[in-house]
Amino acid sequence: MTQSSSPDPFGALVEYLDIPPVKNGPLDGTRFTVKDNIDIAGHRTSYGSPAWRDAHPAPTHNALCVDQLLAAGARCVGKAIADEFTYSLDGESQFFGTPCNARAPDRIPGGSSSGSAASVANGLADFSIGTDSGGSVRVPASLCGIWGMRPSLHRISEAGVLPFMPGVSTVGVLAARFEHLDAAARVLLRSGPRPAVALQRLLVLSDAVEISDMAVQEQVHAALKAIASRSGLVPEPIRFAQLIGEDIPLSDCNLKALRDLQTAEFQSTVGNWIETVQPELGFTFSMAYGNVRDFDRIAALESVVRCERLFERINAALPPGTVICFPTTPVIAPLKGSLNTLEAVMAFYDPTMTLTAFSGVGRLPEISAPLLTVEECPVGLSFAAGHYQDEFLLAAVQASLPRA
Amino acid sequence: MTQSSSPDPFGALVEYLDIPPVKNGPLDGTRFTVKDNIDIAGHRTSYGSPAWRDAHPAPTHNALCVDQLLAAGARCVGKAIADEFTYSLDGESQFFGTPCNARAPDRIPGGSSSGSAASVANGLADFSIGTDSGGSVRVPASLCGIWGMRPSLHRISEAGVLPFMPGVSTVGVLAARFEHLDAAARVLLRSGPRPAVALQRLLVLSDAVEISDMAVQEQVHAALKAIASRSGLVPEPIRFAQLIGEDIPLSDCNLKALRDLQTAEFQSTVGNWIETVQPELGFTFSMAYGNVRDFDRIAALESVVRCERLFERINAALPPGTVICFPTTPVIAPLKGSLNTLEAVMAFYDPTMTLTAFSGVGRLPEISAPLLTVEECPVGLSFAAGHYQDEFLLAAVQASLPRA
Repeated sequence: MTQSSSPDPFGALVEYLDIPPVKNGPLDGTRFTVKDNIDIAGHRTSYGSPAWRDAHPAPTHNALCVDQLLAAGARCVGKAIADEFTYSLDGESQFFGTPCNARAPDRIPGGSSSGSAASVANGLADFSIGTDSGGSVRVPASLCGIWGMRPSLHRISEAGVLPFMPGVSTVGVLAARFEHLDAAARVLLRSGPRPAVALQRLLVLSDAVEISDMAVQEQVHAALKAIASRSGLVPEPIRFAQLIGEDIPLSDCNLKALRDLQTAEFQSTVGNWIETVQPELGFTFSMAYGNVRDFDRIAALESVVRCERLFERINAALPPGTVICFPTTPVIAPLKGSLNTLEAVMAFYDPTMTLTAFSGVGRLPEISAPLLTVEECPVGLSFAAGHYQDEFLLAAVQASLPRA
Repeated sequence: MTQSSSPDPFGALVEYLDIPPVKNGPLDGTRFTVKDNIDIAGHRTSYGSPAWRDAHPAPTHNALCVDQLLAAGARCVGKAIADEFTYSLDGESQFFGTPCNARAPDRIPGGSSSGSAASVANGLADFSIGTDSGGSVRVPASLCGIWGMRPSLHRISEAGVLPFMPGVSTVGVLAARFEHLDAAARVLLRSGPRPAVALQRLLVLSDAVEISDMAVQEQVHAALKAIASRSGLVPEPIRFAQLIGEDIPLSDCNLKALRDLQTAEFQSTVGNWIETVQPELGFTFSMAYGNVRDFDRIAALESVVRCERLFERINAALPPGTVICFPTTPVIAPLKGSLNTLEAVMAFYDPTMTLTAFSGVGRLPEISAPLLTVEECPVGLSFAAGHYQDEFLLAAVQASLPRA
């Protein structure tokens, strides 16, 4: 149960690597790290769990997404720390440590792509690939003050990425500069020519703004004013119920839909392994896993159906040309070690997952932009578009929004 | 290397089961079987490989799709034989035997969902769930003369389904009657109310018809005439190049796109396990796996990109209201034991995969209907629609086409 010492001064990496590119391409000269649930040939993949790592031999092939990056000119410089079974949003690993939040060193980096965010924010890499099911790319991007993209569900190949929640999980990208986010995402998405559709409507998800801290709300309004002035667009506030044409609260996306799908899928994948192998589990994960073990799968199927209805309604409201905006997280990063009571955990997770579950059930591409600062700590402002409109979203952000 | 004896007279099952429904629902009174790469709690999943089965403990949870069916009123009556690692289209397993093709007992049933098709065609179950990456639901449905549906990529949860090719694999349904196919698919798809869009255009993929056996071609034309008379629609022949607006042959969908994506993803999933564990492999699979082992992943990335372009172009040509039709397989089932030379294997696989790869790269829902008979053997006629238009496709088939 002791903490491994990380090889880098920022505690972001499991190990340094130096895997050169195999071809030239649009990522020439860039360096990237890989979250430790994505296979790198010849190196064991830990999934954030020493027990998992020791039970599984090193893969003989890279994940397909790693090969895509190496073949586009990028150099792999490290394997980045992940939370245990990537089942966390905080980035405090009992086994691998807490990667340094570069802009707020006394605060958590966010997780589960904690090492990915920290390796980028501390300058070890230009970009990193992580995974995001409930916010694991977007939350650390927001809390560390970097760019983060969760692409549309299933746009990027998950071959060689550890099985987790097939109906929810995506490979995502984190980067310090938008240019690197854009270039790496387009390689992984296998993007064609840039889309002709221009940004026509900028919606603002009011409920998401309102559940955020007052200081975050003020920053959102200021940022939208700047965006409006640059783009000429008038941001249009819209309530979730109005967006989907049904009188239900935004929190239903998490509490009555995505959370149950996630738990059911987690049981059917990692849950089977844990129940049959009975590995050593970390304390924080054990607490969370208690809910998984006692979960009523059959009762949850109603939520699983609801996910599909919400997907349809959210996407009907987001045609090409429309972007919807909201804070990535409702708060700045909590202080390290402060998530030590059930109340503190819930105060962080519940409103955060209310925001992240929106794109989760919508299967939307979402980009967290490092545009907000509260008490000298970063918070992301997120932009989402309809399912499979990843290239439109990248172009809309590139063309129309202020840069950090 | 000896063949296990199947518990049923048709050689379709690994074991009989009797798992009662957990709730009432639209599948009340129906019986289903489950392909042996989909988890059933408490029973080892073999993946068609005794080595895999013996190396992995029995899962503690059902796959999510199994729970969906049990909670909709269906009873699970058996675990159905699958080809080794589901990496085959023929259904002749060295380890588990060759399930009986009910309508052509001297011929192969097709695979890899061989036991699923045989359990349905021989009346052991009303429907079965299988998986389809390169045709593993559609081909046995076609060769055994039953209905088979490969839904849109990622519409059905793959949690608890063994990892295979995440960018290609789907859970699918096989049934003797359309009503059961429709009802089971709608439960798994979590379908909402039936769509308002009616069938407006019926395209016929000319290249797919032309590479089929002459007798199959004649049957296709006769069936289309009957469909035209019933639906009032005029079938519109269209070439692949015309459909996508680029002068490339239909065979590119397989040879220059999907096949390389499949192989790269297979390497990153099952390939890793085989390379590190070195399990006992069957003869037929060993031959096929030789190509996987020597595969150039980096060169294949061009094909992986091409998949995305073909996906975009195919779907641009298939808006709601449009269905495209073609033979599911270009031939009737080969005789058992006849695929014993490289020439015979290629003569069956190459044209068959040219047809199945179309919906594969398009991520399309495709329904194989048991409408054709050649030399007293069945062949399927397939109907496909745009990505995510599964409910439209089911409704179009239900409303406008003759039934078997």
